Amino acid sequence: MNFGYFDDISREYVITTPETPSPWINYLGNKDFFSLISNTAGGYAFFKDPRLRRITRYRYNDIPVDNNGRYFYLNDGEYVWSVGWKPVKEKLEKYECRHGLGYTRINAEKNEVQSSLTVFVPLGHNCEVQHLKLKNTGDTVKTITLHSYVEWALWDALDDMTNFQRNLSTGEVEVKDSVIFHKTEYRERRNHYAYFSVNEDIDGFDTDRDSFLGVYNGVEMPDMVKNGTSGNSIAHGWHPIASHMLKITLMPNECKDLIFVLGYAENPTDDKFEEHQVLNKTQANETIKAFLTKTQVEEALIHLKQHWEKLLSNFTIKSNDEKMDRMVNIWNAYQCMTTFHFSRSASYYESGIGRGMGFRDSNQDIIGIVHMIPEKARERILDLAATQLEDGGAYHQYQPLTKKGNNDIGGNFNDDPLWLILSVSSYIKETNDWSILNENVPFNNDPENSASLFEHLKRSFNHVLDNLGPHGLPLIGRADWNDCLNLNCYSNTPGESFQTTQHITESNAESVFIAAMFVLYGKEYVNICRQLNKIP
Amino acid sequence: MNFGYFDDISREYVITTPETPSPWINYLGNKDFFSLISNTAGGYAFFKDPRLRRITRYRYNDIPVDNNGRYFYLNDGEYVWSVGWKPVKEKLEKYECRHGLGYTRINAEKNEVQSSLTVFVPLGHNCEVQHLKLKNTGDTVKTITLHSYVEWALWDALDDMTNFQRNLSTGEVEVKDSVIFHKTEYRERRNHYAYFSVNEDIDGFDTDRDSFLGVYNGVEMPDMVKNGTSGNSIAHGWHPIASHMLKITLMPNECKDLIFVLGYAENPTDDKFEEHQVLNKTQANETIKAFLTKTQVEEALIHLKQHWEKLLSNFTIKSNDEKMDRMVNIWNAYQCMTTFHFSRSASYYESGIGRGMGFRDSNQDIIGIVHMIPEKARERILDLAATQLEDGGAYHQYQPLTKKGNNDIGGNFNDDPLWLILSVSSYIKETNDWSILNENVPFNNDPENSASLFEHLKRSFNHVLDNLGPHGLPLIGRADWNDCLNLNCYSNTPGESFQTTQHITESNAESVFIAAMFVLYGKEYVNICRQLNKIP
Repeated sequence: MNFGYFDDISREYVITTPETPSPWINYLGNKDFFSLISNTAGGYAFFKDPRLRRITRYRYNDIPVDNNGRYFYLNDGEYVWSVGWKPVKEKLEKYECRHGLGYTRINAEKNEVQSSLTVFVPLGHNCEVQHLKLKNTGDTVKTITLHSYVEWALWDALDDMTNFQRNLSTGEVEVKDSVIFHKTEYRERRNHYAYFSVNEDIDGFDTDRDSFLGVYNGVEMPDMVKNGTSGNSIAHGWHPIASHMLKITLMPNECKDLIFVLGYAENPTDDKFEEHQVLNKTQANETIKAFLTKTQVEEALIHLKQHWEKLLSNFTIKSNDEKMDRMVNIWNAYQCMTTFHFSRSASYYESGIGRGMGFRDSNQDIIGIVHMIPEKARERILDLAATQLEDGGAYHQYQPLTKKGNNDIGGNFNDDPLWLILSVSSYIKETNDWSILNENVPFNNDPENSASLFEHLKRSFNHVLDNLGPHGLPLIGRADWNDCLNLNCYSNTPGESFQTTQHITESNAESVFIAAMFVLYGKEYVNICRQLNKIP
Repeated sequence: MNFGYFDDISREYVITTPETPSPWINYLGNKDFFSLISNTAGGYAFFKDPRLRRITRYRYNDIPVDNNGRYFYLNDGEYVWSVGWKPVKEKLEKYECRHGLGYTRINAEKNEVQSSLTVFVPLGHNCEVQHLKLKNTGDTVKTITLHSYVEWALWDALDDMTNFQRNLSTGEVEVKDSVIFHKTEYRERRNHYAYFSVNEDIDGFDTDRDSFLGVYNGVEMPDMVKNGTSGNSIAHGWHPIASHMLKITLMPNECKDLIFVLGYAENPTDDKFEEHQVLNKTQANETIKAFLTKTQVEEALIHLKQHWEKLLSNFTIKSNDEKMDRMVNIWNAYQCMTTFHFSRSASYYESGIGRGMGFRDSNQDIIGIVHMIPEKARERILDLAATQLEDGGAYHQYQPLTKKGNNDIGGNFNDDPLWLILSVSSYIKETNDWSILNENVPFNNDPENSASLFEHLKRSFNHVLDNLGPHGLPLIGRADWNDCLNLNCYSNTPGESFQTTQHITESNAESVFIAAMFVLYGKEYVNICRQLNKIP
């Protein structure tokens, strides 16, 4: 089976059927606002942390999989279809999905209407831009009812799927002109909100899911879409969504550009409201204003492409193997950037709930991106080192929103400290920026207890020497890099993680892997010491 | 709108349309095996604990709601329909759902085939029996392909919906004749398995969800159902299900009875296998054998009805108000039994994940059932008292599987201890069984540290006196019965529960409610002391 091909000129992977064996996805975002998008427009968005700031709702393990996203429904009186095939799954005459660097474009055609949906997270804004072009390719006038649709997550993705006693009572929205605002818990303890806008006057909207879909319907065929209308519903609790309705008339050959913005914003705690219980919308309005016209959107996409052009130009090869060139020059670099940002904590198989960012993983991720974004590598190194413990040990993960380490999936993985030496030495080799070693960095995120980054490396190095076993090899602790091999802990209790169980046997298991790491990265540390004229 | 009526003779609530405003549900089960079932056959089953021993998978907050259950699909060559309307939602010619005491029956008719599905948890067995009758009401031969369907949960309901890195790799099944066994993690740390059987030879089966449904389909129209076939798929990881396929021919007026059993069983740790990696099926086979014939099932249902007849006969009234009689004699008692068993920890709005059984709630629940099942009230009282702390305080909840208290949703609710006095005094008043006070009961589930139940009551009583505020009123602790009013704790952190936050202010908030409780239940305690000639 052939599902697509690489377009090396455009640096895109082109998927030629929506019916891939599983969702084929792209990762969007450059700094704080991130999205996952499948080849049928499924997926979700989050701000910084996929657990604590989930913006739209997504059901892992849904039936069928990948059944929520940013969806656009068209009803032309004859057919109801959606521009990414799903969720309606009406047969399309043309379909093509192009996953590019930081954007995804899905082109489709049905019954003499062409659609092109371009989705990207622009540089410098906390939002996802959705540029929808429609064109009448026939020779008769087309009258179309268009519905947009996203479902809001009530911020904490884990709570959102477990605590219904509370969540069914808390949903809150506000609608102003063509913008639907999600502000659950904003009155109480949150200072952030989300919004979904379109750059045209709308003919209706819905914010209550049951009103839009109908109680017995899935997203496949919402009542409002089938009937070509809107309920203008205001959600109070239950399941808040955002859906715009626009009545569109297209003359033969006429094109129409619609720009939707799905955004996130924070307000100062003392400036949350513009009047009693009315959201201060200043920030949202500024972002929306930046994407009102087709020209603005096209320019933002060009900026994003230039950004990637620059990133990828730092290291290229030209071999006589097309596939090797493609991998090294485009896709491996792109994947490394994705890994740097998402750190395997959110994907279509990691639910973004359990693990935060790994200490080991994130240090390793540095070496894949340090030649592209050294300043971000520097920041990440300092964030990671700030979670290190005083004895040189490390939390195994930290939460990207708070940047604090936590033991949720265990600690005492004795390989962890050495990976910090890897990331720092790689950074210095790439940048020659020795000043990073003088940065003052807390232990355990405690600003009262800090030392130079060099001292952190020393603690990493000594952590191995301070934890040697009976054969003079490093003690493994809870595990080393092969962290499914938990030699010192075992539990017969179903469901109890070996990584967090307290049933630790009095074993002195040693790790040859950590010993090898020590030889490798210990040498890097010694080289750093020599350069600084310090004694290891 | 009228959706149904009470049938007082049968003690059933009769729902006359599947399209109720939300799922209208029944709670099945009498001791350890429990099920929830909606009027469209949705819902799930669990053993003892809805979080730790979830048997079938259910998605709270699904779109649409209530979209998984024990489903039976019929394909007669002209129509595909399901006997509970959902999930196919094909229009039925007749539909009626009867929620009875411990059972639910759904009657339907489509295209000259009548169906009647009776679902109940029989006394003395850890299973749900599903008795499906089909009848050809027309005058031509009917050839029907029948598919059953349940989806297995991988035991821990929370892990099942969050940890896909693991769960997509662990699913394991075994198929033997007409029985599909679910045995995920059985090889490793579990000694329990589930199964789904039918009392006939089957013409096919599926245990892999994607094979049965098709990757892009919901449960509304599985590929195998549409095509009238089966894949005989064996799940390895991904999403294990159980689906039987039977080809059925019905002559005019012919009836057919099929009996499906959805069961749970545990094996001794040293007797888990009948041969290498082959499940020891003895217990499942015994249960299945008890429900092979229509007569066996009808007798089991009669036993269940007699059981309820007896329970309800302990207290009846005859007023001149039909609704009063109905409430007191049937439905309030039934609800109280449900509350006793489920303790509001699993419903269509409580996901069964978060709270375990409440100390306060479960003590209160006693007074609704003590006249019906005093021996179970006794057992529950002793279980609850065993989680009490030495100073008389209490964990706010305990997990029904382990019977151990936990602080997951907080502690120090200063009303909690007094509810134990309520339950014990109610029990004694109803039964005159003073011996319960002499039972030796641990504190904090520690068998090394125990005292008589009477001593526990004394600690409850003294816990109030030991915790008085500046006005001589009881200190509220974290909260009293109105546990949304958390006077002593506050957190600005979004998502942080007031009930578990460590930000406790140095307030001396007192509770008039606890003071009133003390007057009421303190008096009960003093009465008990007098009876025993003890000094309070």
